[in-house]
This record gives sequence, C-alpha cells and structure tokens, in this order.
Amino acid sequence: MKSRDSVLRGNNSNRESTGSESDLIARMLTGMEGLDARILLGAGDDAAVFKNKQTAVSTDLTIEDIHFRRDWIDLHEVGFRAVMSAISDLAAMAADPFGVLISLALPQKESREILEGLTTGIQEAVRKVGASLIGGDLSSSPGPIVIDVTVLGEIKDLVTRTGISKGDEIWVTGVLGGAAGAVKIWLSGGNPSMDLRNAFTRTPSRVSEARWLVENAGIRTMIDISDGLLRDVNHLADASDVRIVIESNEIPIHPGLDSDIALSLGMSGGEDYELCLVCEKGILNPLVNVFEEKFGVRLTRVGYVEEGSGIEIKGSYTGSSNGILGFDHFLI
Amino acid sequence: MKSRDSVLRGNNSNRESTGSESDLIARMLTGMEGLDARILLGAGDDAAVFKNKQTAVSTDLTIEDIHFRRDWIDLHEVGFRAVMSAISDLAAMAADPFGVLISLALPQKESREILEGLTTGIQEAVRKVGASLIGGDLSSSPGPIVIDVTVLGEIKDLVTRTGISKGDEIWVTGVLGGAAGAVKIWLSGGNPSMDLRNAFTRTPSRVSEARWLVENAGIRTMIDISDGLLRDVNHLADASDVRIVIESNEIPIHPGLDSDIALSLGMSGGEDYELCLVCEKGILNPLVNVFEEKFGVRLTRVGYVEEGSGIEIKGSYTGSSNGILGFDHFLI
Repeated sequence: MKSRDSVLRGNNSNRESTGSESDLIARMLTGMEGLDARILLGAGDDAAVFKNKQTAVSTDLTIEDIHFRRDWIDLHEVGFRAVMSAISDLAAMAADPFGVLISLALPQKESREILEGLTTGIQEAVRKVGASLIGGDLSSSPGPIVIDVTVLGEIKDLVTRTGISKGDEIWVTGVLGGAAGAVKIWLSGGNPSMDLRNAFTRTPSRVSEARWLVENAGIRTMIDISDGLLRDVNHLADASDVRIVIESNEIPIHPGLDSDIALSLGMSGGEDYELCLVCEKGILNPLVNVFEEKFGVRLTRVGYVEEGSGIEIKGSYTGSSNGILGFDHFLI
Repeated sequence: MKSRDSVLRGNNSNRESTGSESDLIARMLTGMEGLDARILLGAGDDAAVFKNKQTAVSTDLTIEDIHFRRDWIDLHEVGFRAVMSAISDLAAMAADPFGVLISLALPQKESREILEGLTTGIQEAVRKVGASLIGGDLSSSPGPIVIDVTVLGEIKDLVTRTGISKGDEIWVTGVLGGAAGAVKIWLSGGNPSMDLRNAFTRTPSRVSEARWLVENAGIRTMIDISDGLLRDVNHLADASDVRIVIESNEIPIHPGLDSDIALSLGMSGGEDYELCLVCEKGILNPLVNVFEEKFGVRLTRVGYVEEGSGIEIKGSYTGSSNGILGFDHFLI
C-alpha cells in the first residue's frame, strides 16, 4: 500500500494536497484499534503480512488521466503496467506472487473493447510473475478507466522498511528517471524514444532480484521506488529514525535522458519501480558482478546511513528538498 | 468475485450487455493456464481460496451513480455498504473476515471531505465484522467515487456453490426485496420508508449466521443474494448441473414493500446480501426456531432440487424468467 501520485497533476497542483494523500489514508487505516492478531504488518509497509508471516497482500490503483493517458500508451500496456506496479510492492517484501485479483471500472460505452484490450496485458503480467488470476470484479462506470489490482505473495523471510542502522549502505537496482522522462516528453507534446517509452510501459518485476538479494546478501530492508528515489528514501529514513545521505553523483541515470534534466528525474522521477535496499557496509560490493551477470540489471550504491533524521544530498544535484516533500517531479 | 449490476441502469439498459459482464470477467480469468497449486478455488465461486484451504479472498467494486447516488445516502452509509457487500462474499464461504483493503478513487476537488465521510462508515463495518484494515490505496480521480474493497477471511470448513443433489432443500436468511424497493422509490423521485432505506444502507453481515449453519446443520453450499434470488439460485443450479424449483409463495418478502410489486422484488431484487443455502432434506426444519432466536433473523425454505437444469418457479409469481437472465429488477 502506497499512494502513488498523479503523473498528470498539471500546473494547478499544489504541494500541500499532494503530500497529504498518503497521510490521509494512513490516518484512516491507523485510526482503527489494534490490528488483528493474524496480521503482522498492517498499513505503512509495502504490503500487509498475515498468517504466520507467510502471506503478503497489497493493492494498487491505476486511473486513466491520473496515471496514464490513452493517447500515450495502448490498452495492453495499461493492463500490463497496472499489474506490474502492484507486484512491485511484493518484490519490495521479497515475496513470491501467487495470486492476483483485478477490479475494473470501465467507461460504459466502450467497456467490451477496453476489457479486451486490458485483458491481454493483464494476463501477460500475471504470467510473467508466475502468479494466477484468482478473482476480481467488473462494473461499467460513468467515469474513466479505473483498475485496482490486489496481489498476494508468499513470504520466506520478512523484509520490511525498517531496521536500518548507522553505517548501512543504500543501493538501488536498475536505472532511474526513465519513466518520468517519458511522461515529461508526452506532457510537452512530444514522443519519447522507444527506450524511455519502455521505461514507462514495461514496468520491471524485481521479484527474482529481491529474492536473490535476501538469500545472498541477507538484505532485510527494501522499498520499491514508485514516488521517486528521494521520497521513497525519505520513507526509509522516517521508518527507522535515521539520516540517509544520498550521493547524487552516484545515481544510475537512465541513459536515454537529456543531460539537463537527467539528474533531477533520476533523483525524484517516479514510476520506475526499481528497488531501493539497505545493507550492512561492504556486503554487496563483492556481489555486484554476479548480480549484474545473473539478471542483466545494474546494482548501484547511492548513499549511506548516519545518525539523525531526514535526508542529506551530496554531489552536484542542486534541486531543493521538494523531491522529498512531494514535488511534482514531472513539472521540473 | 461476482459482478453486481448497476442499480441505476435506467431505460437505456439492454439485457445483452447486462448479463454478459460477469461472463466477460470470467473469460478473462479463466483464459489463463491452470491455477497455481496454492489456489484451491479460483474465479467462479464467491471468493478464491488458497493456502491449505485456510484463506479466502474476494474483491467488490462500489461506484457512484452505478451502485448508489449521493443524493440518496450519505458518505458514511456509502462506506459501510461498500465494505459489507464485500464481506458478504466471505459470509457465503462461512469464512471469518480478518483483513480488509480499501482502494479509493475520489473526485479531485472534494477528495478530503469525501474521504472523511467514507472513513467512518468503512471503520464501522470493519469493526462490526471483527476484521482489521490492513492496507489500501488512494488516488484523486477525474471521475465518480470508486471504492474497491478486498476482503480476506479464515476458512474452517470449505463451503462452495457446488455439491447440490436431488432432494436437497433451498433456504434463505432474512427477508428479500427491501433494498431493491428503496432504490425503486428513489428512482421514481420518492423517499423510501426508514425500514426500506435501512434495507439498502444497513447491509447485513451474515458471517456468524453462516458459521452457525455450517457447524449446526452441516451446510456446505451457500451463495450470497446480491443479484436477486432468481439469478443467484440460477448460479447454484448451473454450478451443480441440477434443476432448482422455487416456490414463490414461500419467499420471505420485506414487510415494507407495497403488495403489487413485493413478490417481484423479493424474487429478483438485488443487493439484499442475505444468504441462500442448500441443505439435505429435513435437516434445517428442527433448527429454525433456535436460529431465529439466536440471531433475530428469519430462516425460510423456499424451494428444492430436482434432476435437470435451470430453474422452475411455482406459486403465484407471474414474472418471466427475466429475473434469471439479467433483467433490470429496478425497472419492473
């Protein structure tokens, strides 16, 4: 559970309302009395965990004209992306996805055509992660396409957002800023390169990578990068009451980005769905080559943990802390 | 998982598209290869069951101007109803609800006010069934209020829609037609009586009743009445390849309904969320008084099972089989 922001907020966005959506739902969730004994982690981590730590569950909304536009990507891509962005929360728990439920609210007049378009993309994503479609709901709607994807995964080791100590290192998988780069170009009326377009449409599944990192490097703290690196790292710092230093010159930027905006997008562009992980100092370095060879995915150290709170940014990044506080990263 | 129909379909509804929504999603779901070994029941029953038959999961959409109107009921009632209608699928599996996830797509300009209104109703329902809110998602939307509720429940005995044999009896809990009666009055511009209004807004939870019926009468086949008795009984007949005879004079009609439409609404009005159950002949009769005393809820035999297929209606009901095939029961 995490409240992704709109990629389409537009110029009338205001920071106050932006930053508070996840606060609002967190307040709703935590306004309840103590969690049921069968629930281990409730709202606040990537997924809730229940039943003797065996099962994780999470849900993720995708809404037309908020998270995508139909003149940007086709329905197959919409369906694929909707499932993969939900799966990303399971990857961040190193959980193995087994079940997917899909709820679809579809515009009345074209609901059949839209359903058919979405279905192939949904099925591709479910197959890709080795899960099964086990349920869902369908309704026509007077509004835009709304897709809610609930995912269930099997947990072997408990991986959360907490448990960070001074001296730990911060790492990320893959390259960052590509999805936001594509959106930025669409919003300005252009057509992104195939590489950038793919960064938006071919949402990665880092499920196997996460399992490998847990098993081979003992990683116990991860988060998926959905809101942009700075904001997601800030979630980590908050959860463990530590200060995280990000070395901006180390950020693995998507190679297809124009250099003038590349670092800003890499730091605070969202929707990449890569993993940000925390490990003890020196643990991952000797494993980088093996990882990159096995998965064809980069693994980069981007910072470290100190005593204190919040985030400190070192290196050539000159952006403000807006990226942490809910800056609309698509309007840089 | 079941595709509830619109209560607001209006005169331009057409039966063909109405009846086929659940077919469409079923096709999407079943278009996939064999279910994961961890899944016992996939799409097609009230909820999917996984993990050594221990856990059931189901999801249910509630959409403004499809399932409710804001000038009919307040936001607290909307939130309550959205959760309870999802819980109803667990009741039909005799599962004990423990976790609820809520995804909310809310109109941009009033999202805070709407969230606050919905929250109290959502919390009331979650508390009422003894579950915990364990996750969710929130997004602003350019469209109507969309609420998707995913529920998780613990299963003790496997209760499905199948396993019906010739000679079995069909029973229902509570009284029928009240929710549809309220909608009918709203649609014609009137104000329903408090009793009928409550039938729509105070969606019952039959979780305890279902458990009792399983434990004391060995019930193994149930369905919740969301689409109207005739349509839901038809699902039962289909699932077991039998013929179900409904004795229309036995239907427990909501006492607040006008007599001219009462039977039609009782037979095919939806959204009551009572249970329809199947038991061996003679088993339930001696238990009716105990049940009614314990729960304050009626328990009525409304039919029986024969060899054959489909539904046969006996008694004074003169409606057609439209109720079975997707008739818009609010426009009778």
